Amino acid sequence: MPVFPAGAIPGPEQTDRWIRADRARLIHPNLPDSRTDRTVMVEGRGCHVRDSSGKRYLDAAAVLGMVQVGHGRDEIVAAAAAQMARLECFHLWENMSNDQAIELAVRLTDLAPPGLERAFFTSGGAEGNEIALRMARYFHHRRGRPERTWILSRTSAYHGIGYGSGSVSGLPVYHEGFGPPMPHVHHLTAPDPYHREAYGGEDVTGFCLRELRETIERIGPDRIAAMIGEPVMSVGGAVAPPTDYWPRVAELLRSQGILLIFDEVVTAYGRTGHWFAAEHVAVTPDILVTAKGITSGYIPHGAVLTTEELAATVTGSTGFPIGFTYTGHPTACAVALTNLAIIERENLLDNAMKTGGYLADRLAPLRDLPAVGDIRQAGLMLGIELVADKATRTPLPTGTAPVAQALREDKGIILRGNPRSLLINPPLVMDRGTADELADGLFSVLARVEPDGRIRRS
Amino acid sequence: MPVFPAGAIPGPEQTDRWIRADRARLIHPNLPDSRTDRTVMVEGRGCHVRDSSGKRYLDAAAVLGMVQVGHGRDEIVAAAAAQMARLECFHLWENMSNDQAIELAVRLTDLAPPGLERAFFTSGGAEGNEIALRMARYFHHRRGRPERTWILSRTSAYHGIGYGSGSVSGLPVYHEGFGPPMPHVHHLTAPDPYHREAYGGEDVTGFCLRELRETIERIGPDRIAAMIGEPVMSVGGAVAPPTDYWPRVAELLRSQGILLIFDEVVTAYGRTGHWFAAEHVAVTPDILVTAKGITSGYIPHGAVLTTEELAATVTGSTGFPIGFTYTGHPTACAVALTNLAIIERENLLDNAMKTGGYLADRLAPLRDLPAVGDIRQAGLMLGIELVADKATRTPLPTGTAPVAQALREDKGIILRGNPRSLLINPPLVMDRGTADELADGLFSVLARVEPDGRIRRS
Repeated sequence: MPVFPAGAIPGPEQTDRWIRADRARLIHPNLPDSRTDRTVMVEGRGCHVRDSSGKRYLDAAAVLGMVQVGHGRDEIVAAAAAQMARLECFHLWENMSNDQAIELAVRLTDLAPPGLERAFFTSGGAEGNEIALRMARYFHHRRGRPERTWILSRTSAYHGIGYGSGSVSGLPVYHEGFGPPMPHVHHLTAPDPYHREAYGGEDVTGFCLRELRETIERIGPDRIAAMIGEPVMSVGGAVAPPTDYWPRVAELLRSQGILLIFDEVVTAYGRTGHWFAAEHVAVTPDILVTAKGITSGYIPHGAVLTTEELAATVTGSTGFPIGFTYTGHPTACAVALTNLAIIERENLLDNAMKTGGYLADRLAPLRDLPAVGDIRQAGLMLGIELVADKATRTPLPTGTAPVAQALREDKGIILRGNPRSLLINPPLVMDRGTADELADGLFSVLARVEPDGRIRRS
Repeated sequence: MPVFPAGAIPGPEQTDRWIRADRARLIHPNLPDSRTDRTVMVEGRGCHVRDSSGKRYLDAAAVLGMVQVGHGRDEIVAAAAAQMARLECFHLWENMSNDQAIELAVRLTDLAPPGLERAFFTSGGAEGNEIALRMARYFHHRRGRPERTWILSRTSAYHGIGYGSGSVSGLPVYHEGFGPPMPHVHHLTAPDPYHREAYGGEDVTGFCLRELRETIERIGPDRIAAMIGEPVMSVGGAVAPPTDYWPRVAELLRSQGILLIFDEVVTAYGRTGHWFAAEHVAVTPDILVTAKGITSGYIPHGAVLTTEELAATVTGSTGFPIGFTYTGHPTACAVALTNLAIIERENLLDNAMKTGGYLADRLAPLRDLPAVGDIRQAGLMLGIELVADKATRTPLPTGTAPVAQALREDKGIILRGNPRSLLINPPLVMDRGTADELADGLFSVLARVEPDGRIRRS
């Protein structure tokens, strides 16, 4: 059981006041006007959080796949406070620097796959992907290849919602109604081994490689800057590609002078049981984008890692002409250093592997339920794909939202879902007891899902 | 004199190690490869900062125009630590909320000009402008006007460097080499009363309004979503337009159903002596983007404020489909609340007015120097435009960088410049003694600037 701080529960009157104010003053993402209820979170400790009514939840989403070291870690609070008191913020423009940004750049490039030797700091994943896209195009521009502007991405990819990052995201909801996106983006079919019906009988990697080759030929290799992809797709459903996919893609891109960008906003810093999922898929990209787990969400931060060659080219004689207000924020960097120290000292990569494996074993019997089509696991990143019909792999007509809601209301389990899959990304400190709590809750709800998406009463 | 925390100076060996590591591991914005020196900031207090060699500087840039309450405020450190220990982060997706985000939304919409009643949270200015652009287009889409996609912006505008925010920025350096920008953006001439030669003898506002009218006619009013602008230009040189500019622009846009977006990333929260520069220019926009001063830079954060009508339209029956990982981050919101309380309690708007006015008086004699073309002031936002020739208002051939460097090296004054103007945005806690230190340093260096940009030895 979690030990929460001794804060008094706010009480129903205060909660009502907050809910009314929320409805009147805030804009939430993804919240229809018709929905008037709110869950007002007030406390967190380890893998659990508590709302203003005193209700306790298992946070199986680690907020948004980022609280690697768990909620409420005093050591991070102390590091943040100490740095904030000393030098809360400064910038890295021109020759200005600060000790925390330097120490973090050293730490990250020491941890990163060999070849990724330089760090550029951001405040989050979308900013990181914007920088990665710009860096890739700018690299070719500086090399005298300004016509290399096209970006290859993939359907069902999620890279954030800036105009650049949103344009390479594959899901239609990020495009419709937002006007013309960034030009020169092409979306390839994403590899999804469970949905073999989508590849016309062809081997999944074979299909994707053929499509990639044909696309490069059609656009022209000399017009393509980079390909961007999540090594293991997160929002897309915790989908790992066949093991030969990334090595073969990387080889083909390299032979054509096309850069490879890995979006590891979710996967970096232990999610799949490695510091970086690049290790999981055995490919080192030219640019690796990280955020979320870098600070376990205690403060917004991100880092884009790249090669010496790429860094030297984009800086060059005039400097890389863009950056953010908070690039190299010393408090954010201090928090990241402490967070990474905890991940290492507490062997959280190892725990992600072991507890992830244990959880996968505990969930394996769910495959026999009619509503469960597929269960995928890489470290503590899991996806459970729900189906109306196992034979055709048709998704539930309701999507997964009613299931997520039942999990929360009936079992006090918070997790997120995309239209097809439940997504499980708990804190990497999760122990077996908490994994059992999660597995039992999932079984209880998923056993009651009907093919039309309704959930029978327990 | 500032009282720094009692930290020991790191010493030259440690500094050398940091500088070598910085060169090997970091990518800075705007830093040519050839430049090998670094200034490693380690401490800050009030209006001053100190580097790793023990050298003390007057931070007349407030880092990047954001440290409203000054460096090293214990009260903010305590608020950040308390919230981080209780609930360091959560998100606002769907119906999830938290008490700090709600309280901040209430506070901001109470402070904002009447009509701006709803808040959407981000982690910074570029994210805010990306959201504003998307919100504007989405508003028209939801209103059944999906063809309203064009965005009007202005030359010499700076709105950040995401692909959307970078596309509406006017300066060529943010475009060249980065591939095709976001489509459907048109840049209008920015009003700059000092450069009356750029308006062909016409009245500045008259010229700009005629150009705006002709542009709307050419593109077609039914194809334009919004116009974006800084009420007072910051990076562009602390340039306020003629007083009739924004009221007349706003009236024309409204008559054509075109939304007005104010980018107040620099100006909001007291910079010009008002909570929002919208008050300074006496116009309320449909969308107002803020960041920086919202937390005085202690933690990355931002807020986009808008009307009930716009919020209700973009959320609607299915919800506004986009948001960020850190949207509504409770620690960032707690820091913002404490920061705003300090600004109010210490009458920093009033101080910005008074000390800004005092500083402008102290700088007035600089107008007699051959290199000083114009001095502009709005609260504690000042610009000094340097010229090679007062009659033609030609900029120094070297830009302002050598002057900024001399100020730093000779006088220990940190400020930033664009190619034409020095930009002065000190903490809003600046007192007259510190203003004197700044004015004396500026006079000493600017008196020695030659028309070719060289600086005579003192």
